[in-house]
Amino acid sequence: MNDLLLRVLKGEETERVPVWMMRQAGRYLPDYLKLKAQYDFFTRVQTPELATAITLQPVDQVGVDAAIIFSDILVIPQAMGKEVLMEEGKGPSLPVTIQTQKDVDALITENVEENLKYVMDALSLTKKELAGRVPLIGFAGAPWTILCYMVEGKGSKTWDKAKQFAYTQPLVAHSLLQKITDITIAYLKAQVKAGADTVQVFDSWAGSLSPADFKIYAQPYLLQIADALKGDVPVILFPKGTWYALKDLSESGAAGIGIDWCVSPQAAREFTGSKITLQGNFDPSKLLAPIPEIRKAVKEMIDGFGKHRYIANLGHGIMPNVPVDHARAFVEAVKEFGTK
Amino acid sequence: MNDLLLRVLKGEETERVPVWMMRQAGRYLPDYLKLKAQYDFFTRVQTPELATAITLQPVDQVGVDAAIIFSDILVIPQAMGKEVLMEEGKGPSLPVTIQTQKDVDALITENVEENLKYVMDALSLTKKELAGRVPLIGFAGAPWTILCYMVEGKGSKTWDKAKQFAYTQPLVAHSLLQKITDITIAYLKAQVKAGADTVQVFDSWAGSLSPADFKIYAQPYLLQIADALKGDVPVILFPKGTWYALKDLSESGAAGIGIDWCVSPQAAREFTGSKITLQGNFDPSKLLAPIPEIRKAVKEMIDGFGKHRYIANLGHGIMPNVPVDHARAFVEAVKEFGTK
Repeated sequence: MNDLLLRVLKGEETERVPVWMMRQAGRYLPDYLKLKAQYDFFTRVQTPELATAITLQPVDQVGVDAAIIFSDILVIPQAMGKEVLMEEGKGPSLPVTIQTQKDVDALITENVEENLKYVMDALSLTKKELAGRVPLIGFAGAPWTILCYMVEGKGSKTWDKAKQFAYTQPLVAHSLLQKITDITIAYLKAQVKAGADTVQVFDSWAGSLSPADFKIYAQPYLLQIADALKGDVPVILFPKGTWYALKDLSESGAAGIGIDWCVSPQAAREFTGSKITLQGNFDPSKLLAPIPEIRKAVKEMIDGFGKHRYIANLGHGIMPNVPVDHARAFVEAVKEFGTK
Repeated sequence: MNDLLLRVLKGEETERVPVWMMRQAGRYLPDYLKLKAQYDFFTRVQTPELATAITLQPVDQVGVDAAIIFSDILVIPQAMGKEVLMEEGKGPSLPVTIQTQKDVDALITENVEENLKYVMDALSLTKKELAGRVPLIGFAGAPWTILCYMVEGKGSKTWDKAKQFAYTQPLVAHSLLQKITDITIAYLKAQVKAGADTVQVFDSWAGSLSPADFKIYAQPYLLQIADALKGDVPVILFPKGTWYALKDLSESGAAGIGIDWCVSPQAAREFTGSKITLQGNFDPSKLLAPIPEIRKAVKEMIDGFGKHRYIANLGHGIMPNVPVDHARAFVEAVKEFGTK
C-alpha cells in the first residue's frame, strides 16, 4: 500500500514526497465531464457509485498519492435543514439565509451520519475499490466558510454581509459557528468510521477576515475540530489566506496545514518551524504554463519546503481549464524531484 | 492649510494622524448617487466640473484630510488606444484584449497628457476649488493590475488568463508591463504638473501572484514608478495582498505603503521598521459594524500602527452599502484617537 501521505502526516521519514491536488476529482477531467453531462451535481454527489467513480478517476488517470472523496462542503447546510441549489455556471446558492438567533435555533445538528449517509456509502465503496492503493481523504468546510454561505446565500467577493452579521450580532454568529462546529465534528467522525484515513478542513474564506477577526470567528472553531478528531485520524487544516496564523495553527491538534500560493515555502517553514507537516502550495494558474515551466516551478517549490514533513499540492483547487497532461506533469515532477 | 498628509509622508512629526478613505469619492454618498443618476460613468470622469464636484464631496461632507481625484485606473488602457466599457452593475470590460506582441506593439504610449487632458483639467479645477484646504491626491493603476484587465478583458476571481499570458509569453508580458509603466510615469508627472500633491499607485491584483512572481511581474514596475516620481511628489504604493513584499517596498523610492486589512498593524511595522510611512488598514466591511464597534476598532488600529509615520485609511475601497454616518464616525474616531 502507498501510505506515503499518512506517514508524512505522522512526521515519519518517507522515500518520497507524496502528492495530490485539491479538487483533483472533477472539472478538468474528460471522464468527469462525461458524467457531468449525464447527471446533475447533487445526483453525482448523492449516488455512491458515481461519487466513487469520480473519486477514483485522478488516482487512475493522473497518478496522485491519495484519493479525496467527491462531495461538496455545502452538504452540511443541507444536513442542517437548509436548501442548497447548484445551478450550472452560477455557483451554489441558499434561497433562505440565516439572519437571526431564531434562524440559528431552527437548524438541525442531529443525525448527520444518517442524513449524509450517501457520503458514508461513497467513502465505504471508494475504500473497497481502492483496495489499499492510496489513502482516502474525507473533508468538510470550516465553520467560518460555511457561515459565509449560510448568511450571504451565495458566493461573494468581500463576504461583507457575513462579516456584517458577525460584527453586529456576535453572539448569534458564535452560536451559529458552534452549531456548525458540532455537526462538522460528528460528520468527520462518521467519515472516519466509513473509511476516511485522514480529513481536511477547508476554510476557503478565512482570508476575508482581518488577523484579529480570524482569531475570533475562525481559529477557535478550527482548533476545536482538530482537537476532536486528532485521536481518530490526522487532520489537515486549510485556512486560505491566513499566513499570519501559521504559527498558532502549527501548535494545534492538526497534523498538517495547507498553504496557499501567496506564501513562499521558506516563509511557511519559518512561521511553523519543523513542528508540523505542510501541504501546498503550487499556484493553480501555473498549471497553465508550458510543461517545462511547471517542472521548474515544482522543483523550486520542493527545494523551498524541503522533502521532510511535506505534501506537494496546489495552493487552491485545480481549475477547469487545466489540460490533463499539465496536471499529470505536475504529479510526475513531484515524483521525480521529490524522491530522496 | 491642512497639510498633515504631506508632512506625514515626509516623515515629519504631526499633531495628529491624517485620515482619508480609498474610493471616498463616490458610491456611498447620496450626492454622488444623484450625479450618477444623471450622467454615465465616463461623462462623470471626463467632465472636469463633475469630477471636481465628486472629488470635493467627501472633503465637505465626511471631513477627510485629503481629496483624491475622481477618475478610474482604466483611463490608461483608453489612452493606449483600447476601448473600455463601463456597464452599470457589470464592472468594466475591454472588448478587444491583448494577446500577442503585435497587440502590444500597436499600443499608444505618447501624448498621455493631451489624451487624458480631462484628468488634468479636473485636477487643476479641484486644486483651485480646494483653495489649500487639504492636499490633492492623484493616482494610477499599477502595471500588473492594468495588464490583468488588458489581457482578461474584464474582472476575474483568479486572473488565470493574465497569469497564463505572463507564464507562457513572459517577454511579451514584460514588454506590455514596460509600456504601461512608461505611460503611467508620464501620466503621473502630468498629474503633478496639474496640481496633484502626492500620487498613489493601486496594484489591486498584485495579491493574485505568488511572492516569486510578484517579484518578477509587479515589483520592478512599481519601483520604477516610485523612483521616477520621487523627485516630484511623495509616492504611495498600494500593492494589495503582498505582505511578504513590505520589507522590499519599504526600502524603495516610495514615501508610503498602503496596507490591506489582512496584515496586523504590528506585523506591518515589524516588516517595514520605521523606515517608511504606512497607510491603512481598516477592514472595509467593518464600516458596517455598529458605530461603537467602529470606534473601538479604529482605536486598536491606531494603537497598533502608532501615531508616527501613519495615515489612517481603509484596507481597500469603501463599499457602496456603507452608511454615510458610519464613514463619518470612522473619520471622527481617527481625529479623536489619533491626536497626540
